[in-house]
This record gives sequence, structure tokens and C-alpha cells, in this order.
Amino acid sequence: MPDISKLLWPKTVAVVGASSDTKGLRGRILEVMLSHPYAGTIFPVSRSAGEVQGRKAYASVADLPQPADLAVLIIPAQYVADELERCGRAGVKAAIILSSGFAEEPGEAGHRMQAEIAATARRYDMAVCGPNSEGFANIAAAFSPTFSPTMDASVGPLRPARPLGGQVSVISQSGGLGFAFFDRARGRNLAFRHIVSTGNEAVLESSDFLDYMLEEGQTDVFLLLLEDVKTPAKFRRAADKALASGKPLIVAKIGQTEPGRRAVASHTAALAGAHAAYRAIFQHHGVIEGRDFDEMIDLAVGFLACGDKLPAGRRMGVCTSSGGAGVWMADACAAAGLEVPVLDAATRKAIDVHLPSYGTSQNPVDSTAQGVHKLGYAEFARLVGLSPLIDGVMVVVTARRSAFLENDLPKLQALARDSKKPVFMWTYTLPAARSVEILNEAGYPLFTTADGCARTMRAMADYRIVREQRLQQPAEAPARTTPGKVRAEFAAAPSVLCEWHARLFLACYGIGIEHPPGALVSSAAEAEKAATTLGRPVALKVQSADIPHKTEAGALALNIAADGARAAYERVLAAAKRHVPHARIDGVLVQPMAAPGCEVILGVSRDPLWGPLLMVGLGGVLVEALGDVALSPVPLDRAAARALLGRLRGAAILGPYRGAPEADREALIDLIVRLSQFAADYAEEIAEIDLNPVIVHPKGQGVSVVDALIVKQSPPAQHRAAE
Amino acid sequence: MPDISKLLWPKTVAVVGASSDTKGLRGRILEVMLSHPYAGTIFPVSRSAGEVQGRKAYASVADLPQPADLAVLIIPAQYVADELERCGRAGVKAAIILSSGFAEEPGEAGHRMQAEIAATARRYDMAVCGPNSEGFANIAAAFSPTFSPTMDASVGPLRPARPLGGQVSVISQSGGLGFAFFDRARGRNLAFRHIVSTGNEAVLESSDFLDYMLEEGQTDVFLLLLEDVKTPAKFRRAADKALASGKPLIVAKIGQTEPGRRAVASHTAALAGAHAAYRAIFQHHGVIEGRDFDEMIDLAVGFLACGDKLPAGRRMGVCTSSGGAGVWMADACAAAGLEVPVLDAATRKAIDVHLPSYGTSQNPVDSTAQGVHKLGYAEFARLVGLSPLIDGVMVVVTARRSAFLENDLPKLQALARDSKKPVFMWTYTLPAARSVEILNEAGYPLFTTADGCARTMRAMADYRIVREQRLQQPAEAPARTTPGKVRAEFAAAPSVLCEWHARLFLACYGIGIEHPPGALVSSAAEAEKAATTLGRPVALKVQSADIPHKTEAGALALNIAADGARAAYERVLAAAKRHVPHARIDGVLVQPMAAPGCEVILGVSRDPLWGPLLMVGLGGVLVEALGDVALSPVPLDRAAARALLGRLRGAAILGPYRGAPEADREALIDLIVRLSQFAADYAEEIAEIDLNPVIVHPKGQGVSVVDALIVKQSPPAQHRAAE
Repeated sequence: MPDISKLLWPKTVAVVGASSDTKGLRGRILEVMLSHPYAGTIFPVSRSAGEVQGRKAYASVADLPQPADLAVLIIPAQYVADELERCGRAGVKAAIILSSGFAEEPGEAGHRMQAEIAATARRYDMAVCGPNSEGFANIAAAFSPTFSPTMDASVGPLRPARPLGGQVSVISQSGGLGFAFFDRARGRNLAFRHIVSTGNEAVLESSDFLDYMLEEGQTDVFLLLLEDVKTPAKFRRAADKALASGKPLIVAKIGQTEPGRRAVASHTAALAGAHAAYRAIFQHHGVIEGRDFDEMIDLAVGFLACGDKLPAGRRMGVCTSSGGAGVWMADACAAAGLEVPVLDAATRKAIDVHLPSYGTSQNPVDSTAQGVHKLGYAEFARLVGLSPLIDGVMVVVTARRSAFLENDLPKLQALARDSKKPVFMWTYTLPAARSVEILNEAGYPLFTTADGCARTMRAMADYRIVREQRLQQPAEAPARTTPGKVRAEFAAAPSVLCEWHARLFLACYGIGIEHPPGALVSSAAEAEKAATTLGRPVALKVQSADIPHKTEAGALALNIAADGARAAYERVLAAAKRHVPHARIDGVLVQPMAAPGCEVILGVSRDPLWGPLLMVGLGGVLVEALGDVALSPVPLDRAAARALLGRLRGAAILGPYRGAPEADREALIDLIVRLSQFAADYAEEIAEIDLNPVIVHPKGQGVSVVDALIVKQSPPAQHRAAE
Repeated sequence: MPDISKLLWPKTVAVVGASSDTKGLRGRILEVMLSHPYAGTIFPVSRSAGEVQGRKAYASVADLPQPADLAVLIIPAQYVADELERCGRAGVKAAIILSSGFAEEPGEAGHRMQAEIAATARRYDMAVCGPNSEGFANIAAAFSPTFSPTMDASVGPLRPARPLGGQVSVISQSGGLGFAFFDRARGRNLAFRHIVSTGNEAVLESSDFLDYMLEEGQTDVFLLLLEDVKTPAKFRRAADKALASGKPLIVAKIGQTEPGRRAVASHTAALAGAHAAYRAIFQHHGVIEGRDFDEMIDLAVGFLACGDKLPAGRRMGVCTSSGGAGVWMADACAAAGLEVPVLDAATRKAIDVHLPSYGTSQNPVDSTAQGVHKLGYAEFARLVGLSPLIDGVMVVVTARRSAFLENDLPKLQALARDSKKPVFMWTYTLPAARSVEILNEAGYPLFTTADGCARTMRAMADYRIVREQRLQQPAEAPARTTPGKVRAEFAAAPSVLCEWHARLFLACYGIGIEHPPGALVSSAAEAEKAATTLGRPVALKVQSADIPHKTEAGALALNIAADGARAAYERVLAAAKRHVPHARIDGVLVQPMAAPGCEVILGVSRDPLWGPLLMVGLGGVLVEALGDVALSPVPLDRAAARALLGRLRGAAILGPYRGAPEADREALIDLIVRLSQFAADYAEEIAEIDLNPVIVHPKGQGVSVVDALIVKQSPPAQHRAAE
């Protein structure tokens, strides 16, 4: 692994292609770098000019008075590979390539040049960022090799005078959007550390930078903008490291939708992949998804201000001096999945003594303008925060004028210091700059939208839960393994395993063994005999790898009594042959009908990027139409399986629900865990597993896997997740 | 109706309770008023001071040199009623009451004082706003009787130097939030006309102000913040008037959630009502719901900038010079329900000639920084806008520096003037103030979030559809009416009409007549005879107003053959008697089992505020759990019924879907229209109707109403909707 510190913290820098024309990008970049008080040495390198922007220029990186740690390359694409080679030979340890015209172009030439870059970087063990990057900025070092207009010294200082505690770093595949985070967060008093635009990631990936900054240990919150993930295993390792060290990853994954994916594919070399798969991975690793700049900056502000003071639950106290604004905040809390419980009698009593007759202490606590003028915001927030019924406090303020907050400052500071629960501030008028400073300095996050305030608190409560769950247990449940003999049988099986065949392998993991197994028969007489033996109504199902969808083919008969089994046998077989005349038929499966219960769809499918993902959904055709399914990487332990079920909007129908008994949730969780182990063990060999439907019987009565299908991966997937 | 123009456009004003102490509210209000160039005359009225803030003060409104049009009352609550009486006698035509301590307080006193105010206002036909108002501002007249800190002359000018075309008015029940709209929109170059904080609405309601401003004809977009609606019929009339005149109502209805409703109830006299009912009314009248300030201001900016140039559909062209930002915008469009189709060949050809090799014309059109530097933003937007495949254009810009836009200005202006399609701008960096001015002046809305940009375009497309639908047809479908004889029978019926009884009345509207009607029997022998006559499997259902839920009681048997009818009869009757020992039983209904199909829930329930609302949902128990239902006021015509079905997330399962045939959607629409007419006709007499389930058979085969229940309103509702 090359040394990223030579890239981000160089002592000497060569700017190759530097120009004095500050209207062009080649001049701009040097102008931006020189405008900040970077302590290292910058050498312009130019073939044509002896002096660039008043500095002596060198004809080549080989001619520098001392070797450069970093080369900044802003030259036409076709010259980049040679120049990088020259850098390598000259002992340069890192390069940032701002040039465009590589794999983001249609055609072979760009891909070829990008591959050359990667090979050269490997050969010299150079830390190379880009190509097609907009550069980066190490704010802590005031070092900014980028032409982003947001880094103009004229826009404002790189760091706020009174930052909120902690530092934020941005890692973005899109340069424009990456620096826009910095631009938009200026007014929020965030201290940035690194902003890196990774471009095409020919060598260093977002995950590498993330890993480096985690090791560096100075970034408290990460903002990531991803179009894709190049190496899944690297990303998952870095995400786990971040979670373990309590440094939240706030990620915008762009290219979520069909037109978005089309656009990603058109402007990068990346396959965007299905967003549902990304989301499953994010949820599994406690990565927080953000939808836009404002929401992500709100999240950063919340996490930075509160540090380890995460809410222990979702119960919020709301303090307001404006009735209407309190209502809006209560709505925002409820919409974000937070609770706003009526406060306990002792807390209310302590508050009521300070309220005029038209105030209320119920929650939202409406202290009224009069109450707040008398006592200040902090004291009401303190009283509310003492309630055992709440986990965090939302204070509604109007920060248009700062004088009032200034007076309240000592109490605000004391509260921020002493409170064991997070306290958030929302201003419904726009805040004066001084108000933001006062509150940030005292240690509070200030939000300008109620939704952003509530969603951030919710995200922090969720983060705490995920983190505690992951820290309590090994990251992955120990996978079972299949004996070699069984694995050889699986390898020999056809590419589609219909039910009887799939069950042989599933049964090794204890899946689908809950019932009399039924019988695979090959004559009407055998069918009747099997039905008679089972002694209750049966289903008859034609077994053929060529007919995976039996219902459509009519190759299925349900609820057949023993005396109807012969006729049903002939009927389903005839229908199957009509549907697929040359189908190879293994026989007809005669099974007892399952007892009633709650219908569940359980499956596994292989994402081309992330590998096998388990899917669960409740109910039948309708849930598919509504998309109420949850996905997870495999394997899962029981806690993860339980959490997965909890993500379904329709989870309530597992009951008890409207007079229906509670379903056997524990048996379903057990089944999910087993299936996830099976999928993990056969990760490279399986494309798809469908257990559909699974019937979940009332509590204590288990589950029935009513149908099963396995489709093999052909050829087996390459093990690229392991790297 | 009192004359609201005397309130909002007074020539002479008395400020009762005015003070020279500008630290207190009574001094602040006069200070704010005097700080703006209002052209009318202001008289301070004070019992104690001869001069207030340098102006001669009068002891009473009766002593003024000329009668005041408007009295501004900022005196303790207990003196307000007497003062208002004095104003009436002195010929004052309007009053704004800023005092608190009325119906928003617990206890009787406040309510009583508020009722006195209302009575006095009626007696003198005075236009009274409040009490518990934060005042208002007539920006056009520079008249601002309010103590809102946002109206300080020091905060900035009341109107932007270069406003976006058209004017916005705010009507808000919460003063703080109402003025916050003004405060937050300053940076967006919106010209405001009126901002009214209506307070407790003892006399004038939000709907009255809305109606007045619509008549005034100078407001182009309305921002409303509602905690409740006092008189539903007034609101609906005003909303219809706004829709007819093409003036969008953008509404935040706060108190949507349980804690929000609790907070509303605690700080006003209002019953918030169920949010689902409000939403149904809003959708019916084309009222646009906003979730927060930023979204609502985005909507206002979009509508103002585009005027009548609404998108004819949802197909968007995206122009960008940053690949990543284009992806993000494409995602935002898709998330908002907009399409981003690949452009047609002719359009692509016209664009391609301007693109470098790494650009793309597919859509998003990535013109690259190089392309935009050569041609400007406007020219690409123009080319995209010419495509017959798109209805609007989203241009991604970086407005951090204005110089580039300045150069592009002539082309931008020409495009805004000549384009027949709306063109929106999104900047991913924060815009320089000058950039906002340039774009607004040229006639473009500028958005700072991709989501806000896309949601606004979507809202405008939806608004156009609703408006066209409503203008094409009479506002309400003509209601059927029930003959007096039938109505008398209904009046005589018990409060719960079980199925056989409900069907008598529903049948008058052609509901539930699609099948052999079945028979109400009172012996096992009759049951067998009825089942034999029907000649296919039957359901037996105990009919008793005391057992509305037959399944739970076991008072229901399904799929019974004729030879099992006797036993089933005895069984269901015994179960019913066990469940409710003294139930009055009308008999047992023997009905043919319905053919299979798609299951639908159809119902009507009476909202205490809005009257009968029709509800439709697809599927059974699960859909209830997922809350996938749609509501509408009644009656509905076919187009409205079709639109209602379209609002269901699960509408796809009406098919054709996954091999299942298409359901008889037209028959379902017909049933919805009939039920809506029934509900409208019996609006005051019915609390609830349940048709659950309704089975929708394959296309051409109609629907079956499988069960029916009517619960009467007792006593009949007062006709308060009519006013």
C-alpha cells in the first residue's frame, strides 16, 4: 500500500503544467495553492516558462533542487502516463492527476491510458489520486491543490473563528460536489480537515482514503459522496473500522435511480449497481445515508456537537416559546420516528411554577415568550432534560437577534457541559451569524429546519443502537460449512434445482425439515399411496428444472384428498407437458398441505458487486407490488435477523394483529439465520434462492417452507469480495 | 362581511396601548411601524402619556382628530372587549388585536372574553384580526403593525431591488412562523404583498383573508400555515376560487401527528382534526402541501418565476457541466416522480456538435465544463428544451461566481422569454448574491437543493393536471337524491344496519346488485332450500346489529355446499348467541360465494370537520397495516375516482400483474362513484359505511360487494359545512 501521507501532507510539491494565465485551470490551481499559508515548498514545472506566477519554474520534475513528495499533474491526458513514469524515476512518492480524458470517455484509448497510470503507480509504489479529480484540500495544512472556486481565499477563511468541536473530512468521487460540501458548511462553523476528490480512482479508492484518515485519527465525522464502490471488501472493512471507533460515515450514494445510473455509466467507467444492495450494506455497517447537502451537513453538525453524548432512546422533550413552532417540531419529531411523550408529574411541577397561565408543561413545553424572557432558554431545557421519560431535548429558538442568547450564555454553557442528554437547537427565523457562533461555542448544534433537526436526532439514536449491537458481538456469525461430499453433489447438480432437489441441500442447514417430507413419485398409483399415507389433504407439484414457475404452467394441484390424487397426478403432468413439451421431469412431489399462518417471502440473490443478499418480505403478491422488502448481506445472527424484520413496514401483521394470533417470529428468525448461513457458505456457487411462500404458524408452531428453488451461479463467481 | 380593506389598507391608524419603552412589545410595535415609509397617519393612544415616541398621544380613540380606520390593540386581555366597544362607537372600522390571554388559555374566562370580541365585531361590522395575533404587514403599503423582529427596518429592505416577477402573500395562524417565511425568503428575491398572522381567528379566519386577497387580485402565490380550519365550507370555496384563477395555495398544515395535535389543542382553542382528512381535502382542491419553510419557498419561487408556463408533463431534460451533479439531479427527478428520458436523435445530433469527447447528449446532457465555457448554459438548455420528448429543463449551474452568468445573460434572457417550457436552475455551490439577481432578473427560479428543484417541478406538473381537470367539469358531480319514502325508512332504521338491511338502501344507488341477492332465512330448512336454489357453494352470515364483526364472533360460515347448509345454519347461530347472548338476530343471510378476484376495501367515514370522506384500499389486512389507502370528499365523478385509485401505492395489482389478469377497474370506478353519491346524499345521517371486502373480478366481469355495514350518525350531524 503506498503512503497516502506523502499525498495529503507533502513537504515539497511540484505543479506540473503550471501556468501564469490565471484565467485557465493550469494557472488557477497554482494561484489557489499560493493564496493559502501552506508551510511546504511549491515548485512550478513548465516546459515553456522560466518563471510562473513570480516563482522560478523548472523544466522537469527531474530538475528540482530537491525531490518532490507530491506531483500535481494538470497536463493533457496523453502526456500523463509518461510524466508519471518520470515522477517515479525522480523519486516522487505521490501524485494528484487533475487531467480528464481517461476511463470516463467512451472508447478504448482512455481506459488504456488509465491502466498505464495504475501500472506505473504500482511499479513505483506511488500514492496516486485521480485522474479526472478536481484535486484535494488539506485544510489543516492550508494545502489546496485544486482549481475549485470554493477554495478561493477571497470566499472566506478556511476555518471558522469559533468552530464547533471536532473535524469533518469529505471524500467524494465528484469534485464539484465534494467541494460544495465545504462551501455550504462554511456558515455552520464546521472545521474541515480533508476534502478529497478521488476522480476515477485508478489507484487510490475512496475506501483507501477513509482507512488512512481513520488511522490518522483526527477526523470525527466523514462525509462521503459515492457513485460506486470499486472494491466491496475494502469498503466494508473501512466501514467496520469507522463504526468500531465511533466515527460516523454519512454517505450520499448518487446514481440510485435508473436515469441516475445511466448518467453514472456515461460519465465514469463505473457500474453503479443496484441501490437496494448498497442500502443493505450501509444499514448492515451503520453507514448513515444522506439525501442532500443540507441533510448531510445537519448530520455532521449534530454528531460533532454531541460527540459521544448520543441519545439513549427516541423520546424527545420539546421546549418552545412559540406555540406554532412547537407544534411543527413535534410533527417533525413524529415524522422522523421520534416520540414526544407527555412529561412526568414531577418534571411538570418543576416547570409549571415558571409558566404563565397560557403556557403548558405537557410536552411540547410551551414556556411562552414571557416565560423565556424571565428564565431564558437554557433553564427550561435543563428542567425538561431531567425527566426520566426523555432521551434528548429539542429547543425551539428564534436566533434572528443574538442579544437574548448572549445573556443566556452562562446557563447555556453550563447545560451543555452538565447535561447527560443531547440538546439540539432549532431556529425558525434565520439566525444572525453571532447567534450561530454563541450556540456553537457553547457546544450546541443549531439547525434551521425542524425536519433536519429531528432527522439528525433520530439518526444519532439509530447509530447508537447499531454500534452497540456490533460491538457486543463478533462482526459476523460463524458460518457453517458443508462437507466436501455434499459440495461435490451440489457442483454436479443442474443449474436450476427444483424443489425436491433444493430441499436435499437446504435440509443440511435444517431448512424445510419441519414437516413430513412428502414423497417424489413417478406414477399415479404412487401418488395415491403417498397421499393415503400422509392422511391429510396434499399438494402435487411437478418437479422439473425446466418449469421453475409451476403455477403459471398448471403443474401444481392444491388441497387434494387421497381419492383425488390419481386424477390430480395425471392432470398436473399433462399440463406440464403442454406447457414445456420437452421438459425433463424428475417426478411429482406429493406433500401435505401446510397449516394456515402468515405468508412470508424469503430469498437470496447475488448482487454482482456485493455478493449474496438475503431478502425478506411479508405477505404475497401485494407486498412485492409495494416493495416492502428488506435486504441484508449474509450471514446474519439472530439479532441482525430480528432487526431486518423490524425494517419491514408491514411487520405488524406478524401479530398479534386485529384478532389474529401472534406468529412464530422466533422460528422465522431461526429460518432466516439458517438460510443466511447456507447462502454464505455457497456464496460463489449460488445466483438465487427462493423460499416462496414460507408460512409462519402461530407462536410455538414453527414455520413451513412451502416451496423452494435454487438457481446456481454459472460459472461460479470470482471471489473479488475477498481481495 | 366586514371590509377587510379597512384592516389591511387603513388611511388612519390608532395604536392603543402605545408606549415609548421600545424594549417592551407596546413600544416595539410603534417603533416598527414608524421605521417604514407608510403613507397614512398614525395616532398613539395612551392613558398615561401625552406624547409617545415623539408623537402627540391621545387618551382615547374617541378623542382622535379624525376617526381611525384601524385600531391596533396591545393592551391586557381583560380590557380588550371594552376597548373594542369604544372603537366601534367611535366609528373605527377594523382592529388588529395583538393581546394574548383568550381562548388559547385553559379555563372559561379567555373563551368568554373572545366571544365578547366576536359579538362586538359583529355588532359594529368591524374587520377584526386576532386576538393572540403577532400582527400583520402590508409590504406593498410599507404598513406593519407587528412586533416581529423580522420586520425591523435594520434587517433589510422590505422588497428586493430586483424581485422575481409576481407577489407572494402569507396567511398564518402562527405569527412567529408566518413572519419567518418572510425572513427566510429575503435571500430569494421574492416580492411579498401581505403577511397576516390571524391568531385565534375570533372573527376573521384564514379563509376570509384568502378570499379577500384573491379578490384583490395582486397575489400570485399564497403561503398558508394552518393549525386548523374554522369553517370548512369557506375554506373549500376559497380554495376553489384560487384554483380557478390559477393562484397556487401552498399550505403547511401543522399538528399532523399525535404529539403535534396535542400541542395544537394545548395552545389554541382548536380541534386539529385528522390529518388524513385535511390531506384528502387538499388533494381534491389542488392545494399543494409543503413540509417545511425551504420546500414552500422553493414552490413559491418556481410558480412565481414560471407563471402560466407550467410543464405539460413529467419528462425532464437535465443539463449539467458536472457529471456528478447531473447524476444527483437525475436521482432527485426520479425520486420526485419525474422522468428523465433519453433524448431523441435529432436533438442529440444538434447537441453533440458542441460536446468534447467526454461529454454526452443522452440525458442528463453532460456538456462538460469545456462545453459550457464555449457555449454558455443557456444554449444547451435551449437545445434540450426543443426536444419533443421533454416538458421542462433542469439546468445544473455553479453560481459561486457570477461573472460567467453575467456573460451568458443576453442568451439567458432570450431563452426565458422564448422558451415554451419551464427552465429551472440548480446551483450545487452556494450562489453569490449577484448570481441570484442575474438569474431571477432573467426570469429563472434558482434552487439550492436538487430535491427542492425537482419537487417543485413535479408539484407544478401536478397542479396543471388538477387545474385542467377541475376547469373542464363542474366542481361537483350532480348528486342523486333518495325519494322521501326511502329516506323516512332510513330514519326509522336502527343505528347499525347490518348487511341485509344496508343492502336495501345501497341497492337504490345500484350498489351490490351485481349478483343473485341471496336470501334472509330464519330456519335451518330455509337455509338448505336457499342454498339448493342458488345451486353453488354459499356463505351463511348471522344478521344482527349487535354483531357487526361476524368473523370474530364465528357468526359466519363460508364455502358451504347445499347438503351442509342445515348444520352450518345451526353452527353460526349458536356461535352468535355464545358471543352476544342477548343479541337481536334478524336472521341468517344465505349468499352465493363470490368468484375470485382482487380484494378491495371501500368505505365512508364522517370526519367531524370535513364531513363524509370516501376511503379505498387494495388488498386485505396487510394494506391496512401498511396504510395504503386513499381518501376523498364526496361525491366523486369518474375522473376523480380514477385519480383516487391512482394514488394507491399498490394500484399495480389491479393488473395486469405477474400473470394475473387485469381487474375490472371500470366497474370499481363505477362502484366508487355510486358509493360517493350515496354518501353525499346521506351526508348528515351516516357515520360510517363499510363495503369490505369488495371483489373486483377480471375485466368485463364486474365487482362483488361481499359484505356491507352502515352505522348511522346519531344524532344527525349539524350542517356546519354549509354555513
